[in-house]
Amino acid sequence: MYQRRVWTNRETQITERGCMEMKNEQILALLEERKFKELKELLETVHPVDVVEILEDLHEKQMILIFRLLAKEEAAEVFTDMNSDMREYLINTLTDSELEEVMDEMQVDDTVDVLEEVPANVVDRLLMATDEDTRKKINVLLQYPEDSAGSIMNVDYISLRKEMTVEEAIRKIRQVGINKETIYTCYVTEKRRLIGVIDVKDLLTAGESRLIEEIMDENVLCATTLDDQEVVASRIRKYGLVAMPIIDHENCLVGIVTVDDAMSVLQEETTEDISIMAGVSPNEDSYFGTTVFQHARNRSLWLMLLMLSATVTGEILGHYEEAMSVMPVLITFIPMLMGTSGNCGSQSSTMVIRGLAVGEIHFADFFKVIFKETRVALVVGMMLAGINGIRIYLMYDHDVMLAVALGVTMIAVVIMAKCIGCTLPLLAKKIGVDPAIMAAPLISTIMDTCTILMYFTIVTAFFHL
Amino acid sequence: MYQRRVWTNRETQITERGCMEMKNEQILALLEERKFKELKELLETVHPVDVVEILEDLHEKQMILIFRLLAKEEAAEVFTDMNSDMREYLINTLTDSELEEVMDEMQVDDTVDVLEEVPANVVDRLLMATDEDTRKKINVLLQYPEDSAGSIMNVDYISLRKEMTVEEAIRKIRQVGINKETIYTCYVTEKRRLIGVIDVKDLLTAGESRLIEEIMDENVLCATTLDDQEVVASRIRKYGLVAMPIIDHENCLVGIVTVDDAMSVLQEETTEDISIMAGVSPNEDSYFGTTVFQHARNRSLWLMLLMLSATVTGEILGHYEEAMSVMPVLITFIPMLMGTSGNCGSQSSTMVIRGLAVGEIHFADFFKVIFKETRVALVVGMMLAGINGIRIYLMYDHDVMLAVALGVTMIAVVIMAKCIGCTLPLLAKKIGVDPAIMAAPLISTIMDTCTILMYFTIVTAFFHL
Repeated sequence: MYQRRVWTNRETQITERGCMEMKNEQILALLEERKFKELKELLETVHPVDVVEILEDLHEKQMILIFRLLAKEEAAEVFTDMNSDMREYLINTLTDSELEEVMDEMQVDDTVDVLEEVPANVVDRLLMATDEDTRKKINVLLQYPEDSAGSIMNVDYISLRKEMTVEEAIRKIRQVGINKETIYTCYVTEKRRLIGVIDVKDLLTAGESRLIEEIMDENVLCATTLDDQEVVASRIRKYGLVAMPIIDHENCLVGIVTVDDAMSVLQEETTEDISIMAGVSPNEDSYFGTTVFQHARNRSLWLMLLMLSATVTGEILGHYEEAMSVMPVLITFIPMLMGTSGNCGSQSSTMVIRGLAVGEIHFADFFKVIFKETRVALVVGMMLAGINGIRIYLMYDHDVMLAVALGVTMIAVVIMAKCIGCTLPLLAKKIGVDPAIMAAPLISTIMDTCTILMYFTIVTAFFHL
Repeated sequence: MYQRRVWTNRETQITERGCMEMKNEQILALLEERKFKELKELLETVHPVDVVEILEDLHEKQMILIFRLLAKEEAAEVFTDMNSDMREYLINTLTDSELEEVMDEMQVDDTVDVLEEVPANVVDRLLMATDEDTRKKINVLLQYPEDSAGSIMNVDYISLRKEMTVEEAIRKIRQVGINKETIYTCYVTEKRRLIGVIDVKDLLTAGESRLIEEIMDENVLCATTLDDQEVVASRIRKYGLVAMPIIDHENCLVGIVTVDDAMSVLQEETTEDISIMAGVSPNEDSYFGTTVFQHARNRSLWLMLLMLSATVTGEILGHYEEAMSVMPVLITFIPMLMGTSGNCGSQSSTMVIRGLAVGEIHFADFFKVIFKETRVALVVGMMLAGINGIRIYLMYDHDVMLAVALGVTMIAVVIMAKCIGCTLPLLAKKIGVDPAIMAAPLISTIMDTCTILMYFTIVTAFFHL
């Protein structure tokens, strides 16, 4: 039996989708044959995260049937993970007592996440389904600003006192630990103030009579409730923590942010950054969960701004009509120059944006970055100018003047692109704007204008047009 | 005392850099005054990750002085985290016995990471400094392909037998746990085969006389040694695990991948994706750790390819010289059309690339994605055409024909851009190429050519040029 199971999961690992589809079919078959007992057993072997994926493909009636077959704890996890449409349907369909059972099993921080997403009338019904004590905790958490550490923290954690012995501490964990999301780091408090941390690992391996005070680590890495969730998540990653304690303005311990939540935050923030870097206003729903009009709205703002600013480039181009009529060959180099400068600029801005995001680059490195990019630009520019020069020399009747003029333009344009590309994200960071805005779309539009200006300035001087 | 410490760390949290600079200064001052005892004490309060950051700013002589003051365990962590240049200097400077002490404290998987980075002659010296037993483990790990789960896994974990009682299990953890990187999930094996998992949390809260068999979870999520590290890391995130067990082709447990390593893998892979999406060949060093020539090399490949393909666009543009001499105003719309199509295409490709990366979109969704993008493109295209039409009507003497021709071009170009933009990453995924290649630089170069062709086809038809 066990072998098959491990094997199943190994399969899941390798061809995740294929295997889920297989289980999906099994579940559908059992559902149709109304073999609920077997179905219940099968569902016990499926991870809540996978149950959600299965439910997403089902009709609402089937979904509710399966949801009711889930074990209580699993139902709560599935309820937490599902998308808001499914959740609303469930809330409207479940009886009060069923809803109460689900809410009872949910972690307070997850309940808060759910409450922040559902419409106001549903909030009331959900709050009614929670007990008095939980409701108080929920109300506190709901007051923290969105994207703050307070809004994602978990209020269940193990706190110990420094006078306890290891034996007493382990007994306390045994008593209360079963309801806690994480017990692997315990927090030592004195009058609610955080004074130390201790890993369960160290508790288990220490002598039973030793005092917590003696073995706790006083060097606590912690964050405050109002810190940005991304900052907290980055630090959990940086220091390889299982959880980070969150304190309020009086240094009192009020909750913890766990590593799994930190991973979700980092993934969301990266998706947001990547969206912005592509000129798309980010939203929290998934690709398919976003409607066509919402997609269009998210994308059109930047497109319109960039379109209108590109008309400026067009107007400038119009001014050099005469030069182009004298030397029509000039026009054929425009796409190459605009493309190259846009790409050079985006390369630099992207490197800097990512460097800022992972903490490798800081505003203090301003001149160091510009110096580096200028040197990179010189090397790249000369190389591109060389290759392009040879091409022009061969294709345009050994026209050395043209090759040199284009070469000079190329080097100038690449240096300009790399300098503007690396400067803008740093400046954005300094004035508190998201550096991700300074990515490809904006940079290449700016570079288009600059390139046309520089190109015609150089060639008109070269050829006395 | 404790309050100051917690406070220090809270400060660290909020103004991380400012605070590190303060400690940095303190350390430098103590170093100059040769107050090694105080320095040693101060260093004990600094997290190894921060020690590395401090060392990076010091001279080599100072670095080695501070390194020698670190506690053994901390020295090992610092050694693991530092960059390869610093590490090589250290290896060349430390005595054999000092090196041995550091290597003794290192986790086997970290040692392997270090060995993969240092030059061959250094590898020998490091292997000499490890004991026989560890050397065997290292040699096994070194055989796994780069980027495989095997290459990042940890070979230290707790395995239990199903016949054990909870009491026996806890006793085993107490005995061996101190050397293990993670003990929070224990693995139940039978003849080395993985048959179940159990959280330490469940062990602590279960009755002492119960059998492991009764309380273990047989639904093990695991991966094989040859699975891609990114796949394993994504699943650790998806299921919110602390660690994932890794089995070989015979279903035998050989190691675990822990959540902190998973977070590093995900960050590296995202940085790699973002680099590729900006047309930069990724490398593993940091921005400042990469030399100017390496940067230039990473960036020039794509720039050259794109530059040469942009000359095609230029040649095509050259062919329509006559049309432009008849209607010179046509040239002023080129930057706007090329810019908009490039941006539209990159928006779609970026959304799809990210969707593929986080598992929200699969190749099976091919037609669903195209259908969605086409509808989005229609909405966006009509809007942009409208705004642009009004602008042209107002700016160019109420020229309705021109406004309509540009409007038709705009809608056609946006639909084409969005369809090509969403198709290419999906096709890349299908044929096993990294979808990130199909991002802004490539898409906008392709779109430049397509846009010019479509634009002149439409306007020559409209105005019978």
